[in-house]
This record gives sequence, C-alpha cells and structure tokens, in this order.
Amino acid sequence: MEIKVLKDILSANDQIAERNRALLLAKKVTVLNVMSSPGSGKTSLILETIRALKGRVRIAVIEGDIASTIDAQKVGQEKVPVVQINTGGECHLEAGQVGRALDSLPLDQTDLVLIENVGNLVCPGEFRLGEDKKVVILSVPEGDDKVHKYPLLFTMADAVVITKIDLLPYTRFDVPAFLQAIGGMNPQARVFQVSCTSGEGLGEWVEWVTSVIRK
Amino acid sequence: MEIKVLKDILSANDQIAERNRALLLAKKVTVLNVMSSPGSGKTSLILETIRALKGRVRIAVIEGDIASTIDAQKVGQEKVPVVQINTGGECHLEAGQVGRALDSLPLDQTDLVLIENVGNLVCPGEFRLGEDKKVVILSVPEGDDKVHKYPLLFTMADAVVITKIDLLPYTRFDVPAFLQAIGGMNPQARVFQVSCTSGEGLGEWVEWVTSVIRK
Repeated sequence: MEIKVLKDILSANDQIAERNRALLLAKKVTVLNVMSSPGSGKTSLILETIRALKGRVRIAVIEGDIASTIDAQKVGQEKVPVVQINTGGECHLEAGQVGRALDSLPLDQTDLVLIENVGNLVCPGEFRLGEDKKVVILSVPEGDDKVHKYPLLFTMADAVVITKIDLLPYTRFDVPAFLQAIGGMNPQARVFQVSCTSGEGLGEWVEWVTSVIRK
Repeated sequence: MEIKVLKDILSANDQIAERNRALLLAKKVTVLNVMSSPGSGKTSLILETIRALKGRVRIAVIEGDIASTIDAQKVGQEKVPVVQINTGGECHLEAGQVGRALDSLPLDQTDLVLIENVGNLVCPGEFRLGEDKKVVILSVPEGDDKVHKYPLLFTMADAVVITKIDLLPYTRFDVPAFLQAIGGMNPQARVFQVSCTSGEGLGEWVEWVTSVIRK
C-alpha cells in the first residue's frame, strides 16, 4: 500500500520531468542538476562556473533549499537570473517545483540552467527534474568511502566532481581508491578534481560544461 | 491523501519508538542518536567515545547505512557489540529497524547504545527511534551557514558537535557566528568543538556523554 503510493508520486514526478524536458528542448536550454551532501561546495562550484563562462554562456540558476535564501543571494550578486525554491522541509527538489521555477526564468535568453539541489546525498537521486546531466559532488573532507556508502547518486552521475582538493594534505582522502571505486561502479562518469579556493582543476570542469551545452 | 499516509507512517514509527523506550528504560540503557551529513565524522566520534570510555561504560553500537558494512567493521575492531542496519536505499533509520537491532544486542550487559544514523542532515530528524538524546554533528568544512539552511536537526538537538576543528585554519568557518546562530535557534543545546585527529575538545564531549548515562 505504502509502496503503491510512492510509485504513484514518482511516476507523477516523471511525467512533469518529461514536460520540463520538452520545454527545455524547445527553448534550446541545457540543464545540469547539481547534487551533493550539505556543505560539499555546490554553491562555490556554481559561482566559479558562472564567473568562468561570463560573456560566453547565458546562465540562470535554480537554488533548492529547505529554508533560507543564502545561496540565491550569493548567486544573485553575479548578476544572473536566479530563482529560489524553499522546499519547507522536503529533502530534495521535485520536477513540479523546477517547472514553476523555469516558468519564471527568461528561457529565451538562457543557454544553461544550473540547478542546485537540496544538500542530500540520497533522496535527490530518486527525482528526475528534466535535466540533461546529473552532476554529483563529493568534497575531500567527506572521505573517499562515501562512494560505497551512498552508491545511488554516484551510479547515476554523468559527472563526479571532487571538490576542496586544497584540503588533501590535511585529510586521509585516497584519490586513487576513489577513482577506482567510481570506475568500477560507473565507468561512463567523467571525474573532475577541483578547488574553488586555489582554482585548480576548474578549467577542465568548465570545458566539460561547455561541451554538454545544447547547440 | 499522500499527507494522510505519511502521518500514519510517522505515528506507527512513534508507537514503535515508544516501545523501544520502554525496553531501554527497563534495561537501564541510555541511547544517543547521532545524526549528520555524510562524512561529517560520526564514525570517528563514536570510535573516540568508545576508546575514552573503555572499561568504564559498556557500549554497544547500531550502525545505519544505506549500503555497505564499512563503519560496522571499524567499530567492531574496538571489540564492542555492533549491529549493522542496511536501509537498502532509505535515507534515515526508523524505530522498527532499531527495535530489531536492540533485540540482537546484549542489553543486560550494556549501559550505552550509540546509534549512527544514515548520513543525512534532513530526514533522520523526522523519525524518533526511542533515543534519550539527539546528537547533531556539523564538520568545519561544511560551513557555518548550514544551521540556517538545515534548521530542523539543529532545532531538535540536545548536543551539537562541531567536528574537524583542526581544519579551521584552512576554511572560512566562523565559530562565533555558528555559536550565535545555534544560541538563537536552540539555546538549550550543548555545543562542543572537537577534533578526532588532534584529540582537542574530546574530553569535554566524553564528560557530557558520561553525564547523560542513566544510573
């Protein structure tokens, strides 16, 4: 009984996700769904991506948070269109929320929408939003074993970004072990190693983002 | 309709949580429910607590994970009874899972059960397990703004532990701002600042744990 209800919710979500996709295809807008634990550096990576692509790619941002507008304010300072979704307790974004956010964005003047999902390494994986690519971030201080403990998102990811690599000297994060684990679980995923503090690795990441934008 | 089903699940969970509590009171066992994002250092704090209290307090551990037995293996090396719960995708522990785990622990020879919840700063807050105290961990690299963005767990916490304080020099974590935010939101919460790498602050934390154990 409970399972049935859950299925119905998911398939309703998938239907709306398909509607979002149709709209985005018509408008030639590419969408990345950026997911990670709280505090892994989603906002920092989005800010650096906006700065790197300024003048070349027209970016808009959808900020998903349980509460607060902290991230939307940070992104707004970069003078890009931004919509804040407050889920009011829910631990993930759903396609309907994203659909309403898309309606309030200037899609005709947008090439790329970056969706910052709610900070959660589990639940967002179950809800398609209509995105083109799923980006999963893991920060160095979280530890390389997280790929085994939270496999769902890593299995689905089109790109995995290891952030905060400037902290590698102060932690026990084992980069080769992590790369091997991802390679075994999801060999198609592109893996990036970046630091938004030092700027290391951002060029390669931005190049990938550019390569997936719909022409 | 969906909301009604959710309410029923929650109240069923609460009933089982009450049953867990009655058992634990009868057995004079104290339970801490340890919650945080993935990679904040729940397992490390539990390991240090076991080591500090060895020979004084009889500890058992319930390890909640979506997949893998990595943490249970680490804890088992400390020669304490440990039960692994694999939620198989679910983003939080529920009271029924904990009840079954308690049944397989030697409660007559146990003073304190440490429950490591699934790594998630959102969903575990909605499910009572029968615990005496809720402990919420935030690690320095996650950033001090998380208290505003994920308020539920911080509002419910009996103790908030800032971990990885050895990384303070390499991050922008603002301790006074964090303390002020917690103080405004949940003035009853005890706040600890620890590093499991350097050992700093562990004494005060362990003293608090000892003080809440049922005599």
